[in-house]
Amino acid sequence: MSQIDAVHAYLTDLQDRICAALEGCDGAARFVEDRWQREAGTTPIKGGGRSRVMKQGAVFEQAGVGFSDVSGDALPAAASAHRPELAGAPWRAVGVSLVIHPRNPYVPTSHANVRYFEARPKAGAPIWWFGGGFDLTPFYPFDDDVRHWHQVAHDLCTPFGEGRYATHKQWCDRYFFLKHRDETRGVGGLFFDDLNEGSFEQCFAYQRAVGDGYLDAYVPIVEKRKATEYGDREREFQLYRRGRYVEFNLVWDRGTLFGLQSGGRTESILMSLPPRVRFEYGYVPEAGSEEARLAEYLKPRDWL
Amino acid sequence: MSQIDAVHAYLTDLQDRICAALEGCDGAARFVEDRWQREAGTTPIKGGGRSRVMKQGAVFEQAGVGFSDVSGDALPAAASAHRPELAGAPWRAVGVSLVIHPRNPYVPTSHANVRYFEARPKAGAPIWWFGGGFDLTPFYPFDDDVRHWHQVAHDLCTPFGEGRYATHKQWCDRYFFLKHRDETRGVGGLFFDDLNEGSFEQCFAYQRAVGDGYLDAYVPIVEKRKATEYGDREREFQLYRRGRYVEFNLVWDRGTLFGLQSGGRTESILMSLPPRVRFEYGYVPEAGSEEARLAEYLKPRDWL
Repeated sequence: MSQIDAVHAYLTDLQDRICAALEGCDGAARFVEDRWQREAGTTPIKGGGRSRVMKQGAVFEQAGVGFSDVSGDALPAAASAHRPELAGAPWRAVGVSLVIHPRNPYVPTSHANVRYFEARPKAGAPIWWFGGGFDLTPFYPFDDDVRHWHQVAHDLCTPFGEGRYATHKQWCDRYFFLKHRDETRGVGGLFFDDLNEGSFEQCFAYQRAVGDGYLDAYVPIVEKRKATEYGDREREFQLYRRGRYVEFNLVWDRGTLFGLQSGGRTESILMSLPPRVRFEYGYVPEAGSEEARLAEYLKPRDWL
Repeated sequence: MSQIDAVHAYLTDLQDRICAALEGCDGAARFVEDRWQREAGTTPIKGGGRSRVMKQGAVFEQAGVGFSDVSGDALPAAASAHRPELAGAPWRAVGVSLVIHPRNPYVPTSHANVRYFEARPKAGAPIWWFGGGFDLTPFYPFDDDVRHWHQVAHDLCTPFGEGRYATHKQWCDRYFFLKHRDETRGVGGLFFDDLNEGSFEQCFAYQRAVGDGYLDAYVPIVEKRKATEYGDREREFQLYRRGRYVEFNLVWDRGTLFGLQSGGRTESILMSLPPRVRFEYGYVPEAGSEEARLAEYLKPRDWL
């Protein structure tokens, strides 16, 4: 089996396992799958995917878990800015990407992504790298939950050497940052890109640890908080904060912007957007309120 | 009075008149004003403005009408890409920008903007130009309304020469275009930038015609449709379509992106976003429905 076929097989299985686990958590709704395929020649990016969405669940207002396997004949210069030798090379990328928007404002939103990229420049050996991570976006944060999230992230990093957790945790804090708000998107987690240190096997093992770790990190938090009572106040705050998620994804997220600008499948890319959102000019939470307290969590912090 | 002081005086008066007219239309809510000021040295863009927002009106769910007067010591290269001689020059810009989100889905959303820019390069004479326009975004379009909107646009252009309406109407269709959806934001109107043909007086007169024309174009449509009955179906469609407004403003609108990336006042820039929004993966309106009919309006068309 080629490298990319091995990653492909892991990722489709991961998508199946994540969807099954989230359906178990929800207990009511099911994922609906769209299989899509784009033929070469009709679009600069060809390939296909399995976009799966659960709508209006008991626990998850919307959960989107997508797998895609896309390729192109010539990597755009914009996509290879830091590796100019790859411009124009044939490429292929496989990935699983998910965003979960729970109904209950006490359950945080979560995001995970694991991806693998290969390019075959005319001169030289094929180039490959892994990317991915997961991050958590609470509305009403609980320190126990955030520590659990980071503990799982930390522990899965341990076999991959000292500094792995710290480096990828900091990268996550830097990446999921809304410069125009001077705040992080949430409490972070792990983020990495361009990973090809050591062997393919080592990198692939790390990607699997991250992919598998996501459920270990998220499901216990969902189970703990999903029955917490809430009212209009918490729901309105959740809708307001979801606006920041939209701002990040549409203004700053390089993956989203590259996808939309390069002719990717719009519906699959924007599956990350929350089902309902509220924007309000000049909103400031009441001083000392639970809503005001969230701001303390939107600065990078050492959680362990 | 200097050129920019004359434009400043016109714009603050225009903001007053537009707010008064919209309050008259609404009959219930009032605009609340935030005056803001940023001192030189604390930010690359200094200056101030009057951001006015009407929230939760009877007719307008949210109406934002902002005036700003901002300046900088050195124009960033990104802002002067097509006029490299201006990079690094001191500059000042005044403008009024508004976005109106009505409650009733039969009343279209509207946007208008009029702005004036001056730069003083070290070598050569001061440079100035005008920009602006207005455009309409219906949810359930009525041909009469769209024709009225374009008739006002056409008629105000007439004194400024043959071709003015056609040119700026086409520019509007091109500018308010969601490439990732292959659709326009709405039914268009006028858009122009870099206008400095002929004299300052002629250009300023055109800007005043556009600014004054906005109310002539919009208010009759609001009055005609604001009492139309609607239900959940229409409301849900309106919330869904507002998602496209968010997508345009955050992904494609150069003014919004430049403002957010260069340290503009976030709350004033994002005053354009709708108060409530819905995103839905894979939504397709029922064939033959009123909702499906909107797609015909999201391609440029000659309305007169």
